[in-house]
Amino acid sequence: MSDKYVEVIPLGGMGEIGKNMFAFRYADEILIVDGGLAFPDAHMLGIDLLIPKIDYLQQNADLIKGWVLTHGHEDHIGAMPYIVPRLPRVPIYGARLTLGLLKEKFAEFGIKDTMVDLREVDPDEKLRIGKHFTVDLFRITHSIPDNSGMVIHTPVGRIVHTGDFKIEHHPPDGKPSHLAKIAAAGSEGVLLLISDSTNAERPGQTTSEAEVASTIDKIVSSAKGRVFVTTFASHTHRIQNILQIAEKHRRRVVMEGRSMIKYAQVAQSLGYMKLSHPLISTDEMGDLADDQVLFLCTGSQGQPMSVLSRLAMGTHAKLALKRGDTVIMSSSPIPGNEEAVNTVINRLYEIGVEVYHPPTYRVHASGHGSQEELKLIFNLTTPRYFLPWHGEPRHQVNHARLAQSMPTPPQRTIIARNGDVVRVGRDEFKVTGRVPAGAVYVDGLGVGDISDEIIQDRMAMSGDGVLIVTAVLHPTPHVELISRGFVKSNRDLEASIRKVAVEVLETGVREKRRMEDIRDDLYGAVRRFVRKVTGRNPVLIPVLVE
Amino acid sequence: MSDKYVEVIPLGGMGEIGKNMFAFRYADEILIVDGGLAFPDAHMLGIDLLIPKIDYLQQNADLIKGWVLTHGHEDHIGAMPYIVPRLPRVPIYGARLTLGLLKEKFAEFGIKDTMVDLREVDPDEKLRIGKHFTVDLFRITHSIPDNSGMVIHTPVGRIVHTGDFKIEHHPPDGKPSHLAKIAAAGSEGVLLLISDSTNAERPGQTTSEAEVASTIDKIVSSAKGRVFVTTFASHTHRIQNILQIAEKHRRRVVMEGRSMIKYAQVAQSLGYMKLSHPLISTDEMGDLADDQVLFLCTGSQGQPMSVLSRLAMGTHAKLALKRGDTVIMSSSPIPGNEEAVNTVINRLYEIGVEVYHPPTYRVHASGHGSQEELKLIFNLTTPRYFLPWHGEPRHQVNHARLAQSMPTPPQRTIIARNGDVVRVGRDEFKVTGRVPAGAVYVDGLGVGDISDEIIQDRMAMSGDGVLIVTAVLHPTPHVELISRGFVKSNRDLEASIRKVAVEVLETGVREKRRMEDIRDDLYGAVRRFVRKVTGRNPVLIPVLVE
Repeated sequence: MSDKYVEVIPLGGMGEIGKNMFAFRYADEILIVDGGLAFPDAHMLGIDLLIPKIDYLQQNADLIKGWVLTHGHEDHIGAMPYIVPRLPRVPIYGARLTLGLLKEKFAEFGIKDTMVDLREVDPDEKLRIGKHFTVDLFRITHSIPDNSGMVIHTPVGRIVHTGDFKIEHHPPDGKPSHLAKIAAAGSEGVLLLISDSTNAERPGQTTSEAEVASTIDKIVSSAKGRVFVTTFASHTHRIQNILQIAEKHRRRVVMEGRSMIKYAQVAQSLGYMKLSHPLISTDEMGDLADDQVLFLCTGSQGQPMSVLSRLAMGTHAKLALKRGDTVIMSSSPIPGNEEAVNTVINRLYEIGVEVYHPPTYRVHASGHGSQEELKLIFNLTTPRYFLPWHGEPRHQVNHARLAQSMPTPPQRTIIARNGDVVRVGRDEFKVTGRVPAGAVYVDGLGVGDISDEIIQDRMAMSGDGVLIVTAVLHPTPHVELISRGFVKSNRDLEASIRKVAVEVLETGVREKRRMEDIRDDLYGAVRRFVRKVTGRNPVLIPVLVE
Repeated sequence: MSDKYVEVIPLGGMGEIGKNMFAFRYADEILIVDGGLAFPDAHMLGIDLLIPKIDYLQQNADLIKGWVLTHGHEDHIGAMPYIVPRLPRVPIYGARLTLGLLKEKFAEFGIKDTMVDLREVDPDEKLRIGKHFTVDLFRITHSIPDNSGMVIHTPVGRIVHTGDFKIEHHPPDGKPSHLAKIAAAGSEGVLLLISDSTNAERPGQTTSEAEVASTIDKIVSSAKGRVFVTTFASHTHRIQNILQIAEKHRRRVVMEGRSMIKYAQVAQSLGYMKLSHPLISTDEMGDLADDQVLFLCTGSQGQPMSVLSRLAMGTHAKLALKRGDTVIMSSSPIPGNEEAVNTVINRLYEIGVEVYHPPTYRVHASGHGSQEELKLIFNLTTPRYFLPWHGEPRHQVNHARLAQSMPTPPQRTIIARNGDVVRVGRDEFKVTGRVPAGAVYVDGLGVGDISDEIIQDRMAMSGDGVLIVTAVLHPTPHVELISRGFVKSNRDLEASIRKVAVEVLETGVREKRRMEDIRDDLYGAVRRFVRKVTGRNPVLIPVLVE
């Protein structure tokens, strides 16, 4: 490879929101940034999560010099326990909270500290990686502390990678974005900008955490009974603010939900969450009055087993909602979860609790900047080239249009896909090839053992069920029908399907046809018949026994 | 039943958006309003549509005196072909377009004109139904022509039922709402108001059709290539406006998509759609230049087989999108369709066409009024009692709060559920009982042959697939495994499952246990083993043959 350019290779996070991962290659050195997971679309039936394909990194394992993590969210570090063991042991750099959350994951997967080379860095630290890369991290605000973007100094020029960001002037941890570092890179000249496209379609400025906190504060101050708040378990900033609001109103915080408690424990043990009173569980509430408690619980996405869903459905073992309670949904549904969240909200209204949810109430704000914040980054960096990242194609394209509307627009923008090899040099910026990329399905304990055909079968069965036709081959054949998810038991229908099957089998046996051929005939005849009389197409499985 | 009150019995449309149907009963007379269908939630796997349960009407069939339809949308007339044949032949009143669309449906189901008693009425007509009901229809604007609300005069007082509505001052057919009739009822005194809650959470006024038309007009006027517009097939007003815009810009309209053509044919044949040039199909385009055509097509909800989806996926037989084309999504996703619509939008961006979609562009408006319009109805009617209808619980409750915020709020509001018997008299308004209510599933050709257990089986199979263990009972048993939607073919896993099964069978045969018991043992052992080694829970079906 020539020393005239850097190759930027997104392995996830392009054309999608999730599984963020970049490889930056210069000559014979590779720098990796992040290793996140994605959540499945509704049509990926039964899949738990998706992780990036890393064939390219495995094929070039000896070139990897280091790995930098921007922050501790699942879509940036969630794939690490799956990926790290399959790649050589290289230094993994991350801020304290990021590594704290990562270690928690590694522990769950039985990955010992000695097996990985974790190096804690300051969110503003400058790192030397390999011979050619200098990564100058800069603190930038997002919905979790210790979040960084970076200026990657390479032999061909500066690459600014924003990481996930919004511009929060009063962040809950009192540590605003280090914009001066971005501005300095801009003055010196930025070759390429990689920027967060999540909210590229939203005009204006994203609502600030301070405003959300003030809205929640007002609601809590006027609440007469118990208050329940749900938000993303990983939204450490929001949770910190809610803890302070609870304290101000002399309410003890009861935390419920495994993932939220886990995040809180890590954040607290590393000093990222300040508490005057320890968090308690429902069992430890004692005789606190209704107006002396605030519950922080999971369920912001309507997940069926989460605390808020069980409360809404009335299936929680220890708690029941009642009139006079207040529920604050301090979150928005992630695309795909709208229906589940809506169901929970409706149940809450039915119970008669006071419900506060966005957009009617400003009880949530995105962690990603809107158009005015994206424009600020363009003005600070005025990059020669631009790669809109962290977004679906609609977000990437609208981010590109926004770039084009700037007084000094980039010379060129590329809407990249995962696996594109984007070559960037002093005077070139183009896609020069492809590496393998895409998603590996994780389902139960299996990684990669689900294919698209399996998903298609699941889809078919989810629509019309399955019908199994068992027959013993014999001159007077006996046929049994078993179905699941097809139709209610119906003697007439079963008798007529059996009749069709028996005819095919009798003919087959009489004509001494091969078993495979009889099976095919049976399949075709039953399928046609079922479709005609029921209008349905169950997955049909003939089982023949000789 | 006493003559002191009317019973209002919602059989659909309360606590939900869809399958609207009311029974109004006074003494020994029943008036039915509407008979709509609903579309299934995402978790109702494989279900095509839902219709209201009508047990109450069947049990009181001889009391039914008449049936009034408010307008021709699916959620108001879509269940009629299923319901009408199961009830006595009574007069069914509807405006011309409403009955035109209904006849089309009846024809599809083989219901002949002679089997039903359809009576065409003016949208402002006054009807006498039975001895006790006088239904004074009033024209009110919505997204389809010939839409009515009604003042129901009963011996105990006036009931105003808004029907679906928004207040459109410049409707495409030039026929605004007959607000004077509502106001007159208000002056005389309204006992009960039943009003459309769909947008009760939205502040302000719903965007007008005129504004949507003006936005689309601007986009079409600046488009250089072909223009594709998708909207709801039943949105006759929108389609009429788009036809005029096409004509203004000298573009021929190519209509594609079965449902849209069907609606257009009925509307056109009855004089509700004005065309200077006949609609053509893609085959009839001849050599029209790109800037001489405008395609109107189905696909506003991302339905996989719709025209726009096939265009976006590149699977349309006759047309392919290209750069320079403009696509206008003149619609919003119905809850549950967000992901499908988002997928189509992303594909369009990937192809590189110009895409216009709400909320970024005002190319769509709801057909239902927002808070200011709802308040107008309160001010015109100042009802004694209020029944928020046509909405999920969240919409009903927020509509009730809105009512309470009025200068002269209703004395009482009831958040009713389907099946509630709401008694309303001069001085009473309460729920006094329940009748059977809920949804009947329609799936393929079957109506009511799908139970909740079947849906649960479909759900289970959609997550982890199905595993069939076939065995011949024998001292040295032979076991075969068949799976669908489980995991990729895996010899080791299959061998170890077979081993577990063979052990159970050998023991069973040796101990001469009953076949049912052996089957239970087999089920338990394989299930536990599969769960342990794969972390999954496929639907397990043991098939034993002696």
